[in-house]
Amino acid sequence: MQWVKVLGGAVGAAALLGLGIILGHFAMPKEADVPAPSISQDLDLEILETVMQHLDASRIRENLRELSKEPHLASSPRDEALVQVLLQRWKDPESGLDSAEAPAYQVLLSFPGQERPNLVTVVSPTGRVLFSCRQSEQNLTGEQAGPDVVPPYTAYAPPGTPQGLLVYANRGTEEDFTNLQTQGIKLEGTIALTRYGGAGRGAKAVNAAKYGVAGVLVYADPADINDGLSSANATFPNSWHLPPSGVERGSYFEYFGDPLTPYLPANPSSFLLDPDAAPGFPPIPTQPIGFDDAKILLCNLQGTVAPAAWQGALGCDYRLGPGFRSDGDFPADSQVNVSVHNRLELRNSSNVLGIIRGAVEPDRYVLYGNHRDSWVHGAVDPSSGTAVLLELSRVLGTLLKKGTWRPRRSIVFASWGAEEFGLIGSTEFTEEFFSKLQERTVAYINVDISVFANATLRAQGTPPVQSVIFAATKQIPAPSPVGLSIYDNWIRYSNRSSPAYGLVPSLGSLGAGSDYAPFVHFLGISSMDIAYTYDRSKTSARIYPTYHTAFDPFGYVDKFADPGFGSHQAMARTAGSVLLRLSDSLFLPLNVRDCGEPLRSFLQAAQQNLGARLEQHSISLGPLVTAVEKFEGAAAALDQHVSALQKGTPDPLQVRMLNDQLMLLERTFRNPRAFPEEQRYYSHVLWAPRTGSVATFPGLANACSRAMNTGLGSAAWAEVQRQLSILVVALEGAAATLRPVADL
Amino acid sequence: MQWVKVLGGAVGAAALLGLGIILGHFAMPKEADVPAPSISQDLDLEILETVMQHLDASRIRENLRELSKEPHLASSPRDEALVQVLLQRWKDPESGLDSAEAPAYQVLLSFPGQERPNLVTVVSPTGRVLFSCRQSEQNLTGEQAGPDVVPPYTAYAPPGTPQGLLVYANRGTEEDFTNLQTQGIKLEGTIALTRYGGAGRGAKAVNAAKYGVAGVLVYADPADINDGLSSANATFPNSWHLPPSGVERGSYFEYFGDPLTPYLPANPSSFLLDPDAAPGFPPIPTQPIGFDDAKILLCNLQGTVAPAAWQGALGCDYRLGPGFRSDGDFPADSQVNVSVHNRLELRNSSNVLGIIRGAVEPDRYVLYGNHRDSWVHGAVDPSSGTAVLLELSRVLGTLLKKGTWRPRRSIVFASWGAEEFGLIGSTEFTEEFFSKLQERTVAYINVDISVFANATLRAQGTPPVQSVIFAATKQIPAPSPVGLSIYDNWIRYSNRSSPAYGLVPSLGSLGAGSDYAPFVHFLGISSMDIAYTYDRSKTSARIYPTYHTAFDPFGYVDKFADPGFGSHQAMARTAGSVLLRLSDSLFLPLNVRDCGEPLRSFLQAAQQNLGARLEQHSISLGPLVTAVEKFEGAAAALDQHVSALQKGTPDPLQVRMLNDQLMLLERTFRNPRAFPEEQRYYSHVLWAPRTGSVATFPGLANACSRAMNTGLGSAAWAEVQRQLSILVVALEGAAATLRPVADL
Repeated sequence: MQWVKVLGGAVGAAALLGLGIILGHFAMPKEADVPAPSISQDLDLEILETVMQHLDASRIRENLRELSKEPHLASSPRDEALVQVLLQRWKDPESGLDSAEAPAYQVLLSFPGQERPNLVTVVSPTGRVLFSCRQSEQNLTGEQAGPDVVPPYTAYAPPGTPQGLLVYANRGTEEDFTNLQTQGIKLEGTIALTRYGGAGRGAKAVNAAKYGVAGVLVYADPADINDGLSSANATFPNSWHLPPSGVERGSYFEYFGDPLTPYLPANPSSFLLDPDAAPGFPPIPTQPIGFDDAKILLCNLQGTVAPAAWQGALGCDYRLGPGFRSDGDFPADSQVNVSVHNRLELRNSSNVLGIIRGAVEPDRYVLYGNHRDSWVHGAVDPSSGTAVLLELSRVLGTLLKKGTWRPRRSIVFASWGAEEFGLIGSTEFTEEFFSKLQERTVAYINVDISVFANATLRAQGTPPVQSVIFAATKQIPAPSPVGLSIYDNWIRYSNRSSPAYGLVPSLGSLGAGSDYAPFVHFLGISSMDIAYTYDRSKTSARIYPTYHTAFDPFGYVDKFADPGFGSHQAMARTAGSVLLRLSDSLFLPLNVRDCGEPLRSFLQAAQQNLGARLEQHSISLGPLVTAVEKFEGAAAALDQHVSALQKGTPDPLQVRMLNDQLMLLERTFRNPRAFPEEQRYYSHVLWAPRTGSVATFPGLANACSRAMNTGLGSAAWAEVQRQLSILVVALEGAAATLRPVADL
Repeated sequence: MQWVKVLGGAVGAAALLGLGIILGHFAMPKEADVPAPSISQDLDLEILETVMQHLDASRIRENLRELSKEPHLASSPRDEALVQVLLQRWKDPESGLDSAEAPAYQVLLSFPGQERPNLVTVVSPTGRVLFSCRQSEQNLTGEQAGPDVVPPYTAYAPPGTPQGLLVYANRGTEEDFTNLQTQGIKLEGTIALTRYGGAGRGAKAVNAAKYGVAGVLVYADPADINDGLSSANATFPNSWHLPPSGVERGSYFEYFGDPLTPYLPANPSSFLLDPDAAPGFPPIPTQPIGFDDAKILLCNLQGTVAPAAWQGALGCDYRLGPGFRSDGDFPADSQVNVSVHNRLELRNSSNVLGIIRGAVEPDRYVLYGNHRDSWVHGAVDPSSGTAVLLELSRVLGTLLKKGTWRPRRSIVFASWGAEEFGLIGSTEFTEEFFSKLQERTVAYINVDISVFANATLRAQGTPPVQSVIFAATKQIPAPSPVGLSIYDNWIRYSNRSSPAYGLVPSLGSLGAGSDYAPFVHFLGISSMDIAYTYDRSKTSARIYPTYHTAFDPFGYVDKFADPGFGSHQAMARTAGSVLLRLSDSLFLPLNVRDCGEPLRSFLQAAQQNLGARLEQHSISLGPLVTAVEKFEGAAAALDQHVSALQKGTPDPLQVRMLNDQLMLLERTFRNPRAFPEEQRYYSHVLWAPRTGSVATFPGLANACSRAMNTGLGSAAWAEVQRQLSILVVALEGAAATLRPVADL
């Protein structure tokens, strides 16, 4: 502090000299200082507050009205028109982004027969058609007709016209079919009627085919989707419940991504699998029907009464079949014919990408994605999310164009194409830009359906994002009850006891239900999926009742799902706050220490449920215990390093180096050789799908499950040992990246 | 320039005030400035010059004397003693590094029989032993005896005692055996005598076994190793040539890395393959012999005279056999017995790692590696490299300990264990620290044998390292002739015409011959291998004559390979200069544009040699042309961006972002799904091994070669198309990472 001594001289001239020195030192910026203020740019709470204030419920409502006014099935003209809407918004000179583009992929989609529509009939022994299921939903609001409402079908089910006796197969799980077989029911050549839920869509057909079933029907039972209600009066448009004619569509493809270009972007020049040999399609014709039609089929079945757990709310005893009872609506030997005329087509499907260039670290990307394509009008799925996306991008774009704000890091908004067919647009994007995204992506925020219902936030994510979701939601008021934050409301509905924090809201883990899947499983990017959702004490519906049907127009949301759009606004604020915190905070708000609790919990589950059995096969969990401890130790030390840096005056590279450690941790859990080839894209050793019943590390759980339940013997136990090694190496490798960077 | 006006006021007080302002502004560092000088730390040419001056030939000589005074086979007591020598040097308070450690892996090595030594004999029809090959080399300098000289053997060859008629099979390639078969020679049950060269070591046994051969002998022919010389007078210790009793040892394992833990570090808890089922070991007993013994066997063979290309310099007509001629030293029906008693053992093998922490970007690593283990004394292989490594680390350590210098980035020196058995120490290291190394490694410098001979530099590397090697070698005097730089001397021996630069020295491409292999092929890290080597116009020796024999002691180097150690000093300077440039330059001296020339050349080779054939199968090279053009365009634009930044005053993050693009480019060429599982670790789509004859992209070359040469038909051509797509996606993905970072 040389200048203090100079001032202490107390001579006039010296004082003036000193004053000059002071002025020169403090009042005049040096040339070298110029970039400094931008280099240390941090989250600006005023900007954050401005964004929160400007996110407008009525604008979201208007977005939704426009987005959902017509059906916008992937690659349809209306879907392409929405691409232009998004481009226009993102290129708006007043409220647009820095740039926007709409690259298309050429992908394999599946559509129902047009000249020969799919049809399910009951056929008498003489070949007479006794009954036909509806080929479209009832036109209740004037929105269920028209050429753009795709008739109900199961995408990627093969064409064919199987005919046979009907059996009821509950949810079509492997266990369900075994059960039928055990009861002496001959499944060969039958048509199996199944209800949604339990097994995945495609799995119903895969399981059925294993037992020789010739065709599969699927319907949503009012017990599963409507809390038991089934009358026209009690359903849409009189309530949010599914009308009797509503049919849930869906993709029955077993993998995600374009079916013909696994691991390669579906560009016109890319190598294509032979569609006849490509794996993952349902093996037998499959068709969905409404519960009104299902009732006619099911309530006429003969045979044993199905187990209690197989019963539903169609108002009759569900019997197993095969075939119809003689005292019912059809002659006893009548069969069911399932005529499926689905066709595969290569179609162009676009993603829309909008970019806000980062001011300081443009090579760090925060991605925010929502899919654009719907099955029909898709007001809830996905346009509730698209409406939020557009409002958030408008508010941020406006600040950007005014020159008020530019984020520290780059923001990429994405409107994905063909999600409904299997997360295709997002997956192709991750395949095309694999290296770039893996090197540079801070996190992926997914908002698919933004609002299922008005009760509470629901969030799923990898552990490092928990802290930023908590921080954001603590600052945002819940749409109701008044006075509570989103966080405080959330914790009332879903919570857990955290060893580190006490009672906290439960962050779920990510499956593969939306576009986050390729980001987390293929790229190893910290990801989250957020939505506003139900009070589970008030409904047991599997999902919102009109999901994937023609009864999901604007009015459904406006009248039932979120009147006033307060929950949509809350979602825009939550997603916006998380986005800004990730893009603008000097220190990345990713807490790597929060990986510790799931690791511990997986470890304990393994010790308690598998330890003894493993010991019998001379497999020790000791190295895994050590690896978890090393991880915890390294994460705790890094956390202290973060705190120390935050208190000090770190140089920009110190912060960048730390942020790189935080950003890249999730990548260290990737191992493209960990899982079998059939688990396409899965490489995250913590969050890949788990088939075993023990809630532990997936590779270990699955290998143990196979070793215990099959007679494969030592080879299967060797695989358990291999999976354990893969896990230990991943955790030790992860811990190594958290240690001080010049250590090995 | 506000201060000029203030001075212009010419009032005393104002002047003083102004002077104060000036002093305050210019003379006093601001707090915010303090980190600035270090953050922009750049290569200091004075430090570089100091390092060049201090690298001392006589110290390298003394290092070599110590390192090679005893045999130091991997995991032997002397190998472990050298671990301690390295640790002691790197922990020296005056000249050591920041830290050093010696982690060990438990790896599967192979050793010759001890109680029952390996033995090759000629056995009469009655079972009498007529002749025995030597079991050890002749003790010519007093250094070829002693318990630490491992008897000649082929590591990982299985034990067994096959006996049969002898045939001569040239180099043991697939073609050689087909040739013998075509000539009507029954190979079943024979012993095949082969010479080194042509096929890889392990491949000779693999090929032989396919033809029913029961055992393999291998020797180095004087034509291949000694420029034809074979007399005792003309060989070591009278010259650098291989004495008649010298036997080349080597690993016959087909892969690299620990054989039992592919893709996993060989830690004690890691999953181990069953050694009886682990792939990659030679299928039949194999034993190496000296050319004196080979002469006795070969010059007594009966049968057709071998083709001219199969003849060597043993002073007789090489005949094919099978069996001995009746007028020779052995009865006509005598057989050769190959008794191999090799055993596999799990042994601890250490790497030694020494770290200099980076001052500014400690999370960026420049790796410098050399293996430590030898077959016998290993004065050339590898101790000539270890001697250089120790001298370079001493000079840098001294500057470090004095406080004179600390590199911008971290430097990691590595002394790898068990390289001779298959690059084991380095491979296990890359498996253990996969994520960390992949994220943070700038480049890997390999110096295995530093000096083969005194004629010229030889460098191999991935294209981005060409520029830094050129820059370094232009500044360093060649050991001879006086007045030429290493660069100017190099270009006289090996050059090519570069479209961009005109005549330049040839940078070779990297195979898998030393520890760079896991870095480039498994991790995708820019790598290089450098050595001083022969005048190829003066010798056609396959490699230095006493390679892997007991005739590679200190005196061999001191007297023949590099008397005066001038070439060793030149290598220390070259490696040191490259290392400092990579660790200290503000802008990474990796030139991504230099990838363009090999890409173009691969593309042209594909167009000229494969294009027509591909067209016949409706496969277009058009997308590949576009991808190469995109890459070239992006690389050129980035190059201009580099120049612009270098001329301006970029902030530290701008430089870091650019350097990340340069550092990570090589990673974008990785695709762990590109190559078949048998090509263990290979994932670099440009530099994986090529079996096809066309000098183009390896996946394309290999797939085309299979499609053209096998009758597999459409499936094989589909694989060609798939390989082309993999390549296009890799190049487009690479180009995407070179574009401005906020573009997609």
